[in-house]
Amino acid sequence: MNAAINRRITLAARPVGMPKESDFSLTEEAVPEPGPGQALVRVLYLSLDPYMRGRMSAGKSYAAPVGIGDVMTGGAVGEVVRSEARGLKEGDLVEGMFGWQEYALCTRGAARVLPDSGHPPSYALGILGMPGATAYFGLLEVGQPHPGDTVVVSAASGAVGAAVGQIAKIGGCRIVGTVGSDEKAAYITDELGFDAAVNYRTANDIGAALDEACPGGIDVYFDNVGGPMTDAVMQRLAFKARVVVCGCIHHYNLTEPYLGPSHLRHILVNRARVEGFLVFDWLPRYPEAFARLGAWLDDGSMTYREHVIEGLENAPDGLGMLFEGSNFGKLVVKVAER
Amino acid sequence: MNAAINRRITLAARPVGMPKESDFSLTEEAVPEPGPGQALVRVLYLSLDPYMRGRMSAGKSYAAPVGIGDVMTGGAVGEVVRSEARGLKEGDLVEGMFGWQEYALCTRGAARVLPDSGHPPSYALGILGMPGATAYFGLLEVGQPHPGDTVVVSAASGAVGAAVGQIAKIGGCRIVGTVGSDEKAAYITDELGFDAAVNYRTANDIGAALDEACPGGIDVYFDNVGGPMTDAVMQRLAFKARVVVCGCIHHYNLTEPYLGPSHLRHILVNRARVEGFLVFDWLPRYPEAFARLGAWLDDGSMTYREHVIEGLENAPDGLGMLFEGSNFGKLVVKVAER
Repeated sequence: MNAAINRRITLAARPVGMPKESDFSLTEEAVPEPGPGQALVRVLYLSLDPYMRGRMSAGKSYAAPVGIGDVMTGGAVGEVVRSEARGLKEGDLVEGMFGWQEYALCTRGAARVLPDSGHPPSYALGILGMPGATAYFGLLEVGQPHPGDTVVVSAASGAVGAAVGQIAKIGGCRIVGTVGSDEKAAYITDELGFDAAVNYRTANDIGAALDEACPGGIDVYFDNVGGPMTDAVMQRLAFKARVVVCGCIHHYNLTEPYLGPSHLRHILVNRARVEGFLVFDWLPRYPEAFARLGAWLDDGSMTYREHVIEGLENAPDGLGMLFEGSNFGKLVVKVAER
Repeated sequence: MNAAINRRITLAARPVGMPKESDFSLTEEAVPEPGPGQALVRVLYLSLDPYMRGRMSAGKSYAAPVGIGDVMTGGAVGEVVRSEARGLKEGDLVEGMFGWQEYALCTRGAARVLPDSGHPPSYALGILGMPGATAYFGLLEVGQPHPGDTVVVSAASGAVGAAVGQIAKIGGCRIVGTVGSDEKAAYITDELGFDAAVNYRTANDIGAALDEACPGGIDVYFDNVGGPMTDAVMQRLAFKARVVVCGCIHHYNLTEPYLGPSHLRHILVNRARVEGFLVFDWLPRYPEAFARLGAWLDDGSMTYREHVIEGLENAPDGLGMLFEGSNFGKLVVKVAER
């Protein structure tokens, strides 16, 4: 073990606009030794998520930015290979913010020991992890859908969006997803049970497409994207509509503030509620979400799709795919075989 | 009475941008006879309010637009001069949507009989009427201020804004108002007890002025204006901030949609809530608001200022003042002596 090398991807520069290769460095160090209370984790899967773009910038966000030269932040699943921590033992599968590296040290408090649920370990980065909890609490606690409501979710084939739509479907809602390809449109309607899909890349008029998909207006909008899609949705809110502001990936790589029409009048006339949502605020209730989502996977009322990239060194490219929307399903990087 | 004339101001044309004289007509008709269940009201005071601009346009708003040729809509206070309605008797002071005219017919259900509270009858159009209820329910039910919060209110010397600030002050908040003149700034700080004022017409940098007035960020924003002020406030929201979208007078006379920076990222990062508010949704609880506001007026914890215009024929000019911000206090038109 002493001779083993830990490959890591560090932040080399703060990106301007879309992150590029030179914003990252692949560095090597010796695999660290766990001290008292620590365990050494061998990373199996790394998660790629839109929030990572915010951590690469110095501006205000929910959390402190990644420092230049520091390992890129990120959730990962790994296997405990040595432990000096009570409650963590060799062979345990754990999930935590292990970062973009092959080995990480962690404490018991910073790791979730994965139950033997029969689901693939990587699901703990998606439907049975942060994105799943995001969909579950964001939709149910902030969006507060009622049976019969029309629920629109953007980035609907993504990790969060696909779960939002399926949970809303289970809850008796009419569900409409916005996506960036016909293949994704077919996927959400044919495989996930969405009632309609709007392809923002091919629709001549996004507003007209939304009108057709949502003839009674939009009761709940779960927003992952911002930008022109959100502008179009805001003009079609129903009375007492709820908008879950979960992400605005359209804005993350812009070098100037996004300018668009004001939403105030639509919010006012409809007495709508627009509310920001961050999943970490719901941490104490994650087990509830994972139990329900796991049961829905087991009984077939929910399906889940991953997009797996092989090799830690390809994580920066993967992040680029996320911002181009060229992934299809929850993006994970396979770092090692179990 | 039969020979008496009812002067009325009707909508002659739908305004483009700011309403102008030719959008209104002064017409005359015979004073109408009350039928069974109706009372004839002689109007004493007419209220001028920003929402009236919305009713002059054909677009979607909370209520149907005023038809071309119809009497302009508006709240008014008057005296019952003849009654065929049970529960309304000659000499009663009543408040209702009597419109821009000297005489109106009304039913018992469409009139609020004013108690003999010792306050001037015109107060029923302001602090003890719809604007007062707007401030009370919008601030307390949607804004949900806590003692110690920093509350910003725009159009702070207006009918709603002045009440919002004073109620927040009673509730132990730090209150900051935005106004359009130094005279109004002095009024809200010296007479109404605001902690700070920002004059948007003279501030070189609205953002810097807000930073100085709100060093800990903005917990509650009660928005009457929209536009650049709102854009600046949104960038300074505190964690879990609440924004009451009550009006956006800056937008009402624009002929193109107002374009500005997206607020989504600020809403997201702060998990803020932005919610539309319409006072009519709170109608069943108006008596609670009027009782509290009246008591605060009586014990001196609240003051109230009116801007009185003489003569029904000057109502269109008065409405223009409202959109220019050249009124100072709640705008009412004195139509007749009691």
